[in-house]
Amino acid sequence: MSNKIPRDPQNDYTREMAEVRQRFVGEKCGHTPHHLNHYSFDPAVLPGNIEHFSGVAQVPIGFAGPLLVNGEYAQGEFFVPLATTEGTLVASYNRGMKALHASGGIKTTICSDAMQRAPVFIFKDARDARDFGNWIKQEDTLAKMRELAESTTSIGKLLNIEHYIANKFLYLRFNYYTGDAAGQNMVGKATFLVCEWIKQERPEVLHYYLESNFATDKKGSQINVIRTRGKRVTAEATIPRAVLENLMHTSVEPLHYHHQIANIGGFISHVNNNGAHSANGITAIFIATGQDVANVAESSAGILFAEKTPNDELYLSITIPSLIVGTYGGGTGLATQRECLEILGCYGTGKVKKFAEIVAATVLAGELSLASAISGLDWVSSHDKYGRNRP
Amino acid sequence: MSNKIPRDPQNDYTREMAEVRQRFVGEKCGHTPHHLNHYSFDPAVLPGNIEHFSGVAQVPIGFAGPLLVNGEYAQGEFFVPLATTEGTLVASYNRGMKALHASGGIKTTICSDAMQRAPVFIFKDARDARDFGNWIKQEDTLAKMRELAESTTSIGKLLNIEHYIANKFLYLRFNYYTGDAAGQNMVGKATFLVCEWIKQERPEVLHYYLESNFATDKKGSQINVIRTRGKRVTAEATIPRAVLENLMHTSVEPLHYHHQIANIGGFISHVNNNGAHSANGITAIFIATGQDVANVAESSAGILFAEKTPNDELYLSITIPSLIVGTYGGGTGLATQRECLEILGCYGTGKVKKFAEIVAATVLAGELSLASAISGLDWVSSHDKYGRNRP
Amino acid sequence: MSNKIPRDPQNDYTREMAEVRQRFVGEKCGHTPHHLNHYSFDPAVLPGNIEHFSGVAQVPIGFAGPLLVNGEYAQGEFFVPLATTEGTLVASYNRGMKALHASGGIKTTICSDAMQRAPVFIFKDARDARDFGNWIKQEDTLAKMRELAESTTSIGKLLNIEHYIANKFLYLRFNYYTGDAAGQNMVGKATFLVCEWIKQERPEVLHYYLESNFATDKKGSQINVIRTRGKRVTAEATIPRAVLENLMHTSVEPLHYHHQIANIGGFISHVNNNGAHSANGITAIFIATGQDVANVAESSAGILFAEKTPNDELYLSITIPSLIVGTYGGGTGLATQRECLEILGCYGTGKVKKFAEIVAATVLAGELSLASAISGLDWVSSHDKYGRNRP
Amino acid sequence: MSNKIPRDPQNDYTREMAEVRQRFVGEKCGHTPHHLNHYSFDPAVLPGNIEHFSGVAQVPIGFAGPLLVNGEYAQGEFFVPLATTEGTLVASYNRGMKALHASGGIKTTICSDAMQRAPVFIFKDARDARDFGNWIKQEDTLAKMRELAESTTSIGKLLNIEHYIANKFLYLRFNYYTGDAAGQNMVGKATFLVCEWIKQERPEVLHYYLESNFATDKKGSQINVIRTRGKRVTAEATIPRAVLENLMHTSVEPLHYHHQIANIGGFISHVNNNGAHSANGITAIFIATGQDVANVAESSAGILFAEKTPNDELYLSITIPSLIVGTYGGGTGLATQRECLEILGCYGTGKVKKFAEIVAATVLAGELSLASAISGLDWVSSHDKYGRNRP
Repeated sequence: MSNKIPRDPQNDYTREMAEVRQRFVGEKCGHTPHHLNHYSFDPAVLPGNIEHFSGVAQVPIGFAGPLLVNGEYAQGEFFVPLATTEGTLVASYNRGMKALHASGGIKTTICSDAMQRAPVFIFKDARDARDFGNWIKQEDTLAKMRELAESTTSIGKLLNIEHYIANKFLYLRFNYYTGDAAGQNMVGKATFLVCEWIKQERPEVLHYYLESNFATDKKGSQINVIRTRGKRVTAEATIPRAVLENLMHTSVEPLHYHHQIANIGGFISHVNNNGAHSANGITAIFIATGQDVANVAESSAGILFAEKTPNDELYLSITIPSLIVGTYGGGTGLATQRECLEILGCYGTGKVKKFAEIVAATVLAGELSLASAISGLDWVSSHDKYGRNRP
Repeated sequence: MSNKIPRDPQNDYTREMAEVRQRFVGEKCGHTPHHLNHYSFDPAVLPGNIEHFSGVAQVPIGFAGPLLVNGEYAQGEFFVPLATTEGTLVASYNRGMKALHASGGIKTTICSDAMQRAPVFIFKDARDARDFGNWIKQEDTLAKMRELAESTTSIGKLLNIEHYIANKFLYLRFNYYTGDAAGQNMVGKATFLVCEWIKQERPEVLHYYLESNFATDKKGSQINVIRTRGKRVTAEATIPRAVLENLMHTSVEPLHYHHQIANIGGFISHVNNNGAHSANGITAIFIATGQDVANVAESSAGILFAEKTPNDELYLSITIPSLIVGTYGGGTGLATQRECLEILGCYGTGKVKKFAEIVAATVLAGELSLASAISGLDWVSSHDKYGRNRP
Repeated sequence: MSNKIPRDPQNDYTREMAEVRQRFVGEKCGHTPHHLNHYSFDPAVLPGNIEHFSGVAQVPIGFAGPLLVNGEYAQGEFFVPLATTEGTLVASYNRGMKALHASGGIKTTICSDAMQRAPVFIFKDARDARDFGNWIKQEDTLAKMRELAESTTSIGKLLNIEHYIANKFLYLRFNYYTGDAAGQNMVGKATFLVCEWIKQERPEVLHYYLESNFATDKKGSQINVIRTRGKRVTAEATIPRAVLENLMHTSVEPLHYHHQIANIGGFISHVNNNGAHSANGITAIFIATGQDVANVAESSAGILFAEKTPNDELYLSITIPSLIVGTYGGGTGLATQRECLEILGCYGTGKVKKFAEIVAATVLAGELSLASAISGLDWVSSHDKYGRNRP
Repeated sequence: MSNKIPRDPQNDYTREMAEVRQRFVGEKCGHTPHHLNHYSFDPAVLPGNIEHFSGVAQVPIGFAGPLLVNGEYAQGEFFVPLATTEGTLVASYNRGMKALHASGGIKTTICSDAMQRAPVFIFKDARDARDFGNWIKQEDTLAKMRELAESTTSIGKLLNIEHYIANKFLYLRFNYYTGDAAGQNMVGKATFLVCEWIKQERPEVLHYYLESNFATDKKGSQINVIRTRGKRVTAEATIPRAVLENLMHTSVEPLHYHHQIANIGGFISHVNNNGAHSANGITAIFIATGQDVANVAESSAGILFAEKTPNDELYLSITIPSLIVGTYGGGTGLATQRECLEILGCYGTGKVKKFAEIVAATVLAGELSLASAISGLDWVSSHDKYGRNRP
């Protein structure tokens, strides 16, 4: 038997071809899959989403909520679909949502919004690189590049270009507005056209590569923490002492103290998230709603801040500096994915900021929940021993 | 109507309750989901995997392969299930696998294997912290801790404990062998018992937290790149010039040159992966095979190395320093997830290292594929201009 | 005897008071210093440079050179004063300078130039922080801030302001041109005035701090590598094979191969300089020329790139992204410090870029020298064994 | 005239040759130096410290103190020599010392002590690298390596070897005890001998380099923050509210709040020191006492922690994870350098830990002083407005 995966150029996206491929891999390994072919949609919708389509993974979904959000785009109560196989994840987020609901909800704010492509240009020396950079900064060069870039898309807007220079290389970071799409492909196409034009125009460009570890797609990086990728969104809440003590079995001081010590731990270990586990909630929402789940690599970065307020309550907030989300394109229109977005009221155009806020609010619920579990570990027993002001 | 998600403590894991919850969220948002309830297994298997079970996400699966692996555990050809909604992902990995097959396959090696839990201990001053650390290092203390830790698990072994001290805090990083499970829960339980014993034994411990940003679960970190989390696995191949030129439309020099420039880019942007996009392949396999997908946060780190050999071929390798995988427990036993593991010959005990090697080999295929696309961008046109030795 | 260091508010900067303090500390420790009071200038010049003046450290100076520089500001041969107590340092730099001289000299280029102060503003929530940031970005706000900032200095120019937001905090990074001064004090004064004005104008600013770890003065940081602090300067050279083999006892391939492996090492260890030891040369020049030597913390960052050219020569370059230098103010006017600057033709106004170029060129010489020593270690013996293309 | 710096192989370390070289560089630049030749020692002592000796830099010294230290090696009051040209530095440290004296002094603790050399070994593949690593770990291999290493030194002890593997490379980090010397040369010689032996013994080692960016000498790095280089030393103090308010014009809350916000700033900017400016004090002591000042690159890392105690006092501590110091060898025996060490009671053997403690205590004084200045900026005016609990 051939070891080549069967394809049918004419009718590749059919139940039949999916089953042919299931049998093929089944024979190769001696196991016939029975579950892969249970799905409720016509594979004809899948070009653009996958190749060699052979069935679906069934990933359990649980809802957590109600999540009370006081955002600029998301307002009110939401039930958040979480696709996961990790026990306690849904329960933990649900618990955090309950406590934050009792605290008056979560305030969410989007502070920045940009998707990148970052080509590198190679010169004979640093002077050429610098001088080329100065040419790029000129108003008319920018206008021409904007015109070219935006000719490739009906949605995308070239916002600005960051410059980073080293040795004889100039790394440019093109920032785009991409509407309701995550936009990685959109910005790739747009930037490619600009780069090809540049290569024609500027003979001092010896060579360029469209990517150079400066975007940084599907990878965690400090540049994305510093400069934003996708949405930079913050979720905040102030949690009364009574809520912490009654619902979360911890209190203001141990949570605050843990935050401070975890900051030191994270400073030494050089973690890209000084919080607890935002990846858990983000991943589960991403799978449920048809996001590009590999973006968990960068979306899992986080900046947590906890403070004991003058009223002895706990102010808690997290900024997600590089949350990559879309409500249009990619996997968002597939069967269950679309349903989950609809349940959030976030399917289609004009919804991406609402969705980003819901994700951030969910993350904050998870932070509160896990931090409470960690800090409350022996709170009860140590409470008498060390007094209220001492964790 | 109540805004509380319906639960039935007696029969919560049933199709009926899943539908009750679907209706509940459907009514809340005015959309009735139709696809969520298509699944082919009995929800009764789900306790331990999810709460508030309400249906499944249907995530398309495509296979890539054959992937030719010359590992210590994985040997021969594999067809790799990739669950994704991102077009070209399967095609791109498939293309890389083809080129590496033509190059004689991929050599894989697991260099380290450890799962962590990292509590922090708090003292009145640095001297107490240091002296306590010296006590921890004593043979008999270690023996007692090992006995306690291993009493909580039939599989886990406490390998060793790393010490990190700052201010008046001692961060301990417990390293465990966890068999075929990813093991995060296992090591949590074991370490908790040890910590509680320590607290009883050592009055100078004012307090401890079971986590402190030193493990670092679900988060990218330098400590994990440096010290390993889960499996530290390397995939290597040497690709002949002809393979690159005929199959990948690039060549040795532009790939090598791109690698060098991307290293500089990644050094400045401080990315946690100097390669291209290992998160894509890892995430798609993780979803398909029931891994804890949130671990993409740490599993997406990577160390790529490209070299032009004396024979003018391309040596390419990637080390994944913190690959978190399991073939037992978690979501691995669910319906489609188990099937996908079986297709790889990786379901159950004794299979985790084989599985880790397959993941690493898949990642290398993706690296070659995307790097070729980037470096080949204008290779054809620039080829005449700059000559063979110049990208 | 009192344990208070003696002072004389009227005549504190005199030889007499210096000797009084020498005797004081001498009596405290039972050792009378004899060498501290050997110096050749009138202490009356020292207010602004030091308090409790008590004598001088005598730090040996050696010259290395001639350093052949082909810069935009520094052109020709220079003899570089290096103040150090570390044997081989001067010899090593001298050796590198000789090889680079034989290679036609070092090309130097300044790509950016800015000194920072980075206050943080605190708000009740993220929205206030973001909206305040938008106000800051307005043309008329910027104009007013520029006017205020520049009212405090005859030299400094407010170039632009970077925004970084997290939680409910807005970190602003003010970038200034500071002429021939390093400028830390200048930008502090200017930014303070702006901040005080802001606090008056904007009641939503609950509080601000003038520093917040975003500048980052006297500390290495990724932000400075990414965004520049002081001068971002590159030194480049192409070294013929014969020069490497005859003068440096190494060759193109082992140097290039070492660079690649050191990149991997530095990626894992997360070093802030993938080169060898730029701090050595920088520190020695800084001490000799009256720079603020503590700036070695940030000036020691570096981005090294080595490449085998199509002609089989070695292209080597280093970018120093945060070189803090001045030729005016600070310690530059003191007796020996001024002489050393004069020997370089770099004393006073209009000289700082020339000086920065000389420092960068010196650093490159040191990189070549140490990298040759490391890579040449067993080059002779391994040469026959592995052939020319193999280090 | 020749452009070669004059040398006299027979009598190079003489006043005469120093003056010959002064005239040489003077003629080259048209400036005759007058101050460089003022020094009070015989240049004959300088071989081992410098080449091309041509005079000295006169760097002003001021004393700060008394510094009250409650260390394990340093106990009592010290007057700390600070060589600097930066106005306010001495005054600022002096102010911090005064406040800490009034607070009962500074507790200092050395937690680790090791100097490194980190060679990299190159193999044909990852398996060879891993297997070689296992051989290195064997008891008898270690014993042999220890014997060889320690045969090169009467002082150094090989403590242990850390392993870091990536691709086909094994990076070893040799940790040594080096007595009262900083020890970089000592560990280089010892490790070189071991490496040469390994190369003879193990044919699978294709090549090695003695350095690879894993040590990381003269460079800041996360590995050194995590794993220690030189001394890992902590200084701690608890400062009463009254001391802060009366002497420092700030209070507990604004200092604590600033610390928390600066942590967030530093997390985003990825600074290697979340404190204020330890490099200032360290550099000034290093110049005064003949340390290798280029080690400021790594010694400037720091981990600051501030806490409001249950008694409403401020606990403040800093850990310096990679403080490179010596009291023997290098520049410590030169004229003024030795005097400064003697004034601290730290010259010669058996003193290095005492000296490290004094440096750390000095650094803490500087942290308190500058943090007070920043946090107290508008404390007075904002005090009424926001109340005591609010910075």
